[in-house]
Amino acid sequence: MKIYFAGSIRSGRQDAALYYEIVRQLKAYGEVLTEHVGDTDLGVLGQDIGDRKIHDRDLEWLKSSDYLVAEVTTPSLGVGYEIGKATEWGKPVLCLYRPAEGRSLSAMISGSNRVTLKEYQSPTELPEVFEQFLQSR
Amino acid sequence: MKIYFAGSIRSGRQDAALYYEIVRQLKAYGEVLTEHVGDTDLGVLGQDIGDRKIHDRDLEWLKSSDYLVAEVTTPSLGVGYEIGKATEWGKPVLCLYRPAEGRSLSAMISGSNRVTLKEYQSPTELPEVFEQFLQSR
Repeated sequence: MKIYFAGSIRSGRQDAALYYEIVRQLKAYGEVLTEHVGDTDLGVLGQDIGDRKIHDRDLEWLKSSDYLVAEVTTPSLGVGYEIGKATEWGKPVLCLYRPAEGRSLSAMISGSNRVTLKEYQSPTELPEVFEQFLQSR
Repeated sequence: MKIYFAGSIRSGRQDAALYYEIVRQLKAYGEVLTEHVGDTDLGVLGQDIGDRKIHDRDLEWLKSSDYLVAEVTTPSLGVGYEIGKATEWGKPVLCLYRPAEGRSLSAMISGSNRVTLKEYQSPTELPEVFEQFLQSR
């Protein structure tokens, strides 16, 4: 099973440690193509290989994946773009969101019937979410 | 000519006055389907009509549009999602970005060959950008 994990890079790395934990949990189910998103040493500039290369490689990975799992708490153009593509391509999409006062999730995500949205507060809640989502297909 | 304008709503309204000016300029070229994005009275919660309705209406508008023009300086999941869809549907996409120290644009936008990216600092630079982009097709 190939899983594409999406999280914010250039919009801020404040959740990097959380992404690391999500990637760690997802690896129990298969190959995580985008393990670098959970690399806590990766800064807001991301990988230094040229933007065209990053874009084309990531879209190839997304195309080849069986699932898209996205952490959507930190608003990110790239994550939104990938969700837009994946829903268009018929991929199962799981979005993880931590509600808090002062923020609200885009209606493009919460209002899409092609997205499974799970709210949570701690990564300890995620094993059950992944079990349900990744095993039910 | 139908133009879909995209800008941040729930990720923050700090650029709302700029969106208003962009919508004003775009109206010289045709109908702007999403004029509410430039409404400076619209808060971060957006319109109160239900997220499913917003999502489906916006995608219908996007599908019916001739162009997508997106202000991408404030990172937004919804704007990224719409760019992902529009590039998939073969729509001409113009992204407007104000570079500044401490921020960098997603590689999914800067690295896409289906996106025309224009950097600018002031809306006074935009008439020339729109003239080129909207008249050349």
